[in-house]
Amino acid sequence: MASVFGGVEGGGTHSKAILVSGDGKILAETEGPCANHWLVGVDKCIEVINDMVQRAKVEAGLDPNTPLYSLGMSLSGGEQKDAIDKLIAHMKELFPSLSRHYFITTDAIGAMATASDRGGVVLISGTGSNCKLVNPDGSHIGCGGWGHMMGDEGSAFWIAHLAVKMVFDAKDNMVAPPHDINYVRKAMEEYFQVSDLMGMLPHLYRNFQKSHFAAFCKKLAEGAEAGDALCQHVFARAGRVLAKHVEAVLPAAQEPLLSGDLGLPILCEGSVWKSWELLKPGFTEVLEKLASSDKFKGRFHGYSLLVLRQSSALGGASLGAQNLGANITMDYAANYNVFYRHTFNNSSQ
Amino acid sequence: MASVFGGVEGGGTHSKAILVSGDGKILAETEGPCANHWLVGVDKCIEVINDMVQRAKVEAGLDPNTPLYSLGMSLSGGEQKDAIDKLIAHMKELFPSLSRHYFITTDAIGAMATASDRGGVVLISGTGSNCKLVNPDGSHIGCGGWGHMMGDEGSAFWIAHLAVKMVFDAKDNMVAPPHDINYVRKAMEEYFQVSDLMGMLPHLYRNFQKSHFAAFCKKLAEGAEAGDALCQHVFARAGRVLAKHVEAVLPAAQEPLLSGDLGLPILCEGSVWKSWELLKPGFTEVLEKLASSDKFKGRFHGYSLLVLRQSSALGGASLGAQNLGANITMDYAANYNVFYRHTFNNSSQ
Repeated sequence: MASVFGGVEGGGTHSKAILVSGDGKILAETEGPCANHWLVGVDKCIEVINDMVQRAKVEAGLDPNTPLYSLGMSLSGGEQKDAIDKLIAHMKELFPSLSRHYFITTDAIGAMATASDRGGVVLISGTGSNCKLVNPDGSHIGCGGWGHMMGDEGSAFWIAHLAVKMVFDAKDNMVAPPHDINYVRKAMEEYFQVSDLMGMLPHLYRNFQKSHFAAFCKKLAEGAEAGDALCQHVFARAGRVLAKHVEAVLPAAQEPLLSGDLGLPILCEGSVWKSWELLKPGFTEVLEKLASSDKFKGRFHGYSLLVLRQSSALGGASLGAQNLGANITMDYAANYNVFYRHTFNNSSQ
Repeated sequence: MASVFGGVEGGGTHSKAILVSGDGKILAETEGPCANHWLVGVDKCIEVINDMVQRAKVEAGLDPNTPLYSLGMSLSGGEQKDAIDKLIAHMKELFPSLSRHYFITTDAIGAMATASDRGGVVLISGTGSNCKLVNPDGSHIGCGGWGHMMGDEGSAFWIAHLAVKMVFDAKDNMVAPPHDINYVRKAMEEYFQVSDLMGMLPHLYRNFQKSHFAAFCKKLAEGAEAGDALCQHVFARAGRVLAKHVEAVLPAAQEPLLSGDLGLPILCEGSVWKSWELLKPGFTEVLEKLASSDKFKGRFHGYSLLVLRQSSALGGASLGAQNLGANITMDYAANYNVFYRHTFNNSSQ
């Protein structure tokens, strides 16, 4: 199975595995549960991965006892070198017939490698948030991704928390809300099944579940779409702070990232991007200002927002192959859609 | 033991019990560990209370099998009626010889009742923060006290978190710090025994301990006292937001609260107040502005900051007695010190 490459996308709620040949043909795809080793532990994580890949081998008509050439994994939580080395050592020991070589990278880098080999910005806003700028030479720099206790700005959790906090602050007479809180308060009482603020405490402490708290964001998106001003306000704030991530990493961008046909490519991952129209006022405002700043005037001409059409397991597989000097033929343009494009007026002047 | 009243101060780290006679004489005082039922559970909480009170009876030369007339408890976390009723029912059942009557209030109300029977503002800044305004007629209104996930503004946890967040944001190029971060970064690395930001994650998630995280505030106080501008900045911010709590509750103040000799009495509880000189710039700035606002001009002449010299168990005992129509003679002036006094210039014009 010298020419079969594996790829894994390991997310916080579900995972995917693919097998791909050197010419880029996808031989099999399987799915599995959460494979974030911080959330489920190392043992469970590698069990999930092994199970998905072995099923994929069978699906592709391959012998499950023959190792893949390489397995490239794009994992949320795949950042710390020590933890990654430990994960790979465990896999080699427990599942010797899984793959000959292993490679682990983060969800952001795996996503980028699915859409392009010339770099760009990856901006994740799902339950949590994160941003990475990848240069054409492969060097990269990040911003955020520290979780709900130290950031997650612009994520579903952050949006849900901001809205709930405004209800608390209004009730406490601590901060006057920018708009009427009634829709948000009622939606909160309904979603969390509480009758007052005191009832929220178990949801914040004893029974805290980040994904459940974050999913309240969906109710706020519904409110915003129905015209509620406070819901619209929190999404605009989220758009602003997401764009601030781009602003934070942009000084590290090499020139070709800014001068391509798409302008700066920004790959948008995570379900909050489904509410792009709500994020748009804040997001475009920050980047408009950035483009006209002394630092970027005449250099930052525009940007495109991209969404993947293919699992980032494919990018993981590609990086895993590259790491060994091998190559998977990638049709990058087929792997994403451009859902928004913006050209700055000032840059043409 | 018809004339012996008990009082309990139940805190997040340690507790106290007192026995007092109707003429205000303290017969015994004992100490115990944490008695916050949210933190240690109901069973442990009432065991701690029973143990302290029974030891106090012995210390006072009383028969431990004879119930007290009443036991008034001033408990952090003593806010929710359902939980309080459950606590009392358990105590009656398990320890029938402890006391004939029970009364539970919050740490803030118990503290206030120790210093005065004419009301004032209680402003707690310890590990967490909270604020209550108590009117001369006993009516009260609160602000904050929702814990670290939804506030705790101006508390030790909040100060520690703010400083650490500034290090993260500076490193991420997300927000420019108002001053050099080097002292705070080094202090953080030393206190948490980490070499980079990634190392902070276990302290924020897997091994999170609020009291340990909050205690980093002490290192920041040391830095501020040694002249570090960023440390001074976070304390000034804390002072400002603590004063914002006063601003939030002040519209509910009945006239006598503002017109007494002390001006508005603000009872300051919790160890962050040890750094009053650092909080002062922000705190005084906010109240200065409030006093000259249209709403309070000519009404809000000044304020005094008070610190208790006596355990709030005494206030708990007093309220417990009052609740039954009994009375403990209180020498309020002996129970507190005034550590700061401010008269607004504009009010005398």
